[in-house]
Amino acid sequence: MALIQPRTLKGFRDYLPEAMMPREWIIDVARRVYRSYGFRPIDTPALEYLEILTGKGSDETDKQLYRFEDHGGRAVGLRFDLTVPLARFVAQHQQQLGLPFKRYHIATVWRGENTQTGRYREFMQCDFDTIGVTDLTADVEMALVVNDLFLALGVEDFTIRVNHRGVLGGMLEKLGLADRSAAVLRAVDKLAKIGRQGVAEELSRAAGATPAQADDVLALASIAGDNEQTLAALKPLVAGNATGECGVEELADLVAAVAAAGVPATRVKLDPSIARGLDYYTGVVVETQLNELPTIGSVASGGRYDNLAGLYTNQKLPGVGASLGLDRLLAALEQLGRLPAAKTPAPVLLCMFDGPRRNDYLKLAARLRAAGVGVELYPEPKKLGKQLQYADRQGFRAALVLGDAEFAAGQCQVKDLQSGASATVPYNGGDAGAIAAEVRRLLEQ
Amino acid sequence: MALIQPRTLKGFRDYLPEAMMPREWIIDVARRVYRSYGFRPIDTPALEYLEILTGKGSDETDKQLYRFEDHGGRAVGLRFDLTVPLARFVAQHQQQLGLPFKRYHIATVWRGENTQTGRYREFMQCDFDTIGVTDLTADVEMALVVNDLFLALGVEDFTIRVNHRGVLGGMLEKLGLADRSAAVLRAVDKLAKIGRQGVAEELSRAAGATPAQADDVLALASIAGDNEQTLAALKPLVAGNATGECGVEELADLVAAVAAAGVPATRVKLDPSIARGLDYYTGVVVETQLNELPTIGSVASGGRYDNLAGLYTNQKLPGVGASLGLDRLLAALEQLGRLPAAKTPAPVLLCMFDGPRRNDYLKLAARLRAAGVGVELYPEPKKLGKQLQYADRQGFRAALVLGDAEFAAGQCQVKDLQSGASATVPYNGGDAGAIAAEVRRLLEQ
Repeated sequence: MALIQPRTLKGFRDYLPEAMMPREWIIDVARRVYRSYGFRPIDTPALEYLEILTGKGSDETDKQLYRFEDHGGRAVGLRFDLTVPLARFVAQHQQQLGLPFKRYHIATVWRGENTQTGRYREFMQCDFDTIGVTDLTADVEMALVVNDLFLALGVEDFTIRVNHRGVLGGMLEKLGLADRSAAVLRAVDKLAKIGRQGVAEELSRAAGATPAQADDVLALASIAGDNEQTLAALKPLVAGNATGECGVEELADLVAAVAAAGVPATRVKLDPSIARGLDYYTGVVVETQLNELPTIGSVASGGRYDNLAGLYTNQKLPGVGASLGLDRLLAALEQLGRLPAAKTPAPVLLCMFDGPRRNDYLKLAARLRAAGVGVELYPEPKKLGKQLQYADRQGFRAALVLGDAEFAAGQCQVKDLQSGASATVPYNGGDAGAIAAEVRRLLEQ
Repeated sequence: MALIQPRTLKGFRDYLPEAMMPREWIIDVARRVYRSYGFRPIDTPALEYLEILTGKGSDETDKQLYRFEDHGGRAVGLRFDLTVPLARFVAQHQQQLGLPFKRYHIATVWRGENTQTGRYREFMQCDFDTIGVTDLTADVEMALVVNDLFLALGVEDFTIRVNHRGVLGGMLEKLGLADRSAAVLRAVDKLAKIGRQGVAEELSRAAGATPAQADDVLALASIAGDNEQTLAALKPLVAGNATGECGVEELADLVAAVAAAGVPATRVKLDPSIARGLDYYTGVVVETQLNELPTIGSVASGGRYDNLAGLYTNQKLPGVGASLGLDRLLAALEQLGRLPAAKTPAPVLLCMFDGPRRNDYLKLAARLRAAGVGVELYPEPKKLGKQLQYADRQGFRAALVLGDAEFAAGQCQVKDLQSGASATVPYNGGDAGAIAAEVRRLLEQ
């Protein structure tokens, strides 16, 4: 019989253990932080009715949707984000969930994107949201969660950039450009890429802005300085417009609140040039930048929205939430050398010398695990050199060597696989405490 | 615009937080135990080339496969188990992985099953396998992992039933029925359901067994007693046949090995009636039964196989592994009242009285989290009664109450939401240690 070629689909990838271990670590940290704020886990099906998925999607997401007919002839699709499923979920289970509803959802999504751009067609999202609350407290907590998350990942040099859609919206109302806000936002979003002149031209061409209007928009988007200076510069631009004034006030309150919660003032930075989520966000918006790698873009982004589930329910559900850019963050932490050192799930390899002694090895491994030390027992007797080669290749921290001589002497060799040094520790087939202590000493080095 | 009805597809379900929390807990425990033995995490795409998925599948899985054409016109399908992806994965990455290769894989699979049977079309599998090892050590570890897993889940009264495909195989060789082993296994598998007479009839009808042959097969499948008695009864039935003798010897070695590793003798039970995995398993097979709920069937099953990836590579890859029945186990633990008591990810609700004091609440919450206590801050000022109602409904363990009076007095009320009792603890806006200590006291009760 001819062999089938083992291969993955274009745009999809396997995660080998060395890629999966840091991935699981980041997800664990995110979950721990989300939970410490009371966000609750949910999950939804990968497959949804097509009408649910296409209801809100843009033309672009519609085109990227994996869709087909299921066995019952239903038109179905694979979810392309976790926001549409959240909206459907909240609308469907509203009664049972109650409000406020805080959830996190860490799950896979699929988009048939053009892989030429280096993007994958299957990736994981790590979202958290607070639904049913208009109070700014929830917006502040969004920033605090992001702050705690990066600290828990061992990253300290990052900036949470904050803006408010009401600020630009208010100014556009003042300028009489409110009906062209989407085009204005699209243009402003390109400031870093195409510069002031380019944005001015696009504002004129796509939003019909006069040169004076374009100047005002650019003045807003170019405001720089510390948070106090930014607030001072924003106030006159929105003065007299309720939307804009309210936006600036919320930004001022947010800055004070995150400081009260202990976040250094330089880490949360007002940035009027941020304009993410064209038609979705309505209030505070945040992006997060790793200062050592600013070019990779935002690694955690989110904001406030007015109406989560308008397609599925008449109840207006405001909310605020953000999403961790898992793949981007993983690549960044790898580049910065910030991924955890552990390369093996269990730090210790117990070498196996001697078939008839199998049960002695199984017993020692069990005792070490009971003492809290993860142990992989090499699963067959083989030359020690081969086993140490395996230990080295896999990246174990320590190897335990017990041959006939060691068993006879009531000893175990604990090899430090980083330094190459070896310690001799008593083990007589009973208590494995001395070995566990020596391994712990190595792990703490 | 007409609303879209928010609903899930037939056979699919949402996980609300109360269902998701125990699910995450079991998965966490499984991962911790798998890792303590050195099993490494991997992940593979949900979508695979159809030819990969249909290569090995039976007619039944083929029929249940979710299949469609992707954007590039490729025939693709959603994985229906984690074994076929593992085989493809190992064949594809063999060079990089090396052998032995120990992996765990916790991921969703899809089968368009008939939902009349109460089964879902999307469910999670939690597999672990050791590839590239023929030594019995790996088989023993499979049983030890299952043992540790249930103990870590707080279950002590379970039985790991063990059989060996070589035992029945050897006897069938002796009887001259080796070419009809699949039909024999199918018949024996029904022993509990249709009884001895039923099995005897099926053995005659479907496997062409003589009454004497059927008697021998039934004698084997009906062996009972402790492990020593079972081994003694098996030996004569396979005597003179190498396959059968080797199977019995491996069972004897396995029983001795798990005992050496500290597992009580009654927990691992030889059971010659187990005949799972008709054409897949080739050596040791295990099933796990919760003794308090024997009727729900096996909650962790697995075994040894000779050739994992024969469809994709000419290299013979033997292995051994098992799978945790997550959904079945969840249902069982719920029925037994063994799920963790915690209903909220953060144990404490901090009530918010007073808008202008928002920053004081944010500060207190931050300090408690820094002290290791998870805190959900009620995200808007509301009547205390409403907030306590929320706390009750969600199942928080404690609520913190600080109104103007408490702030003025430098105090915080810590309400025990189980007993209704309340303790007054000092808090002056600084160190939150006294509150953290009181909460910890409640959590340890």
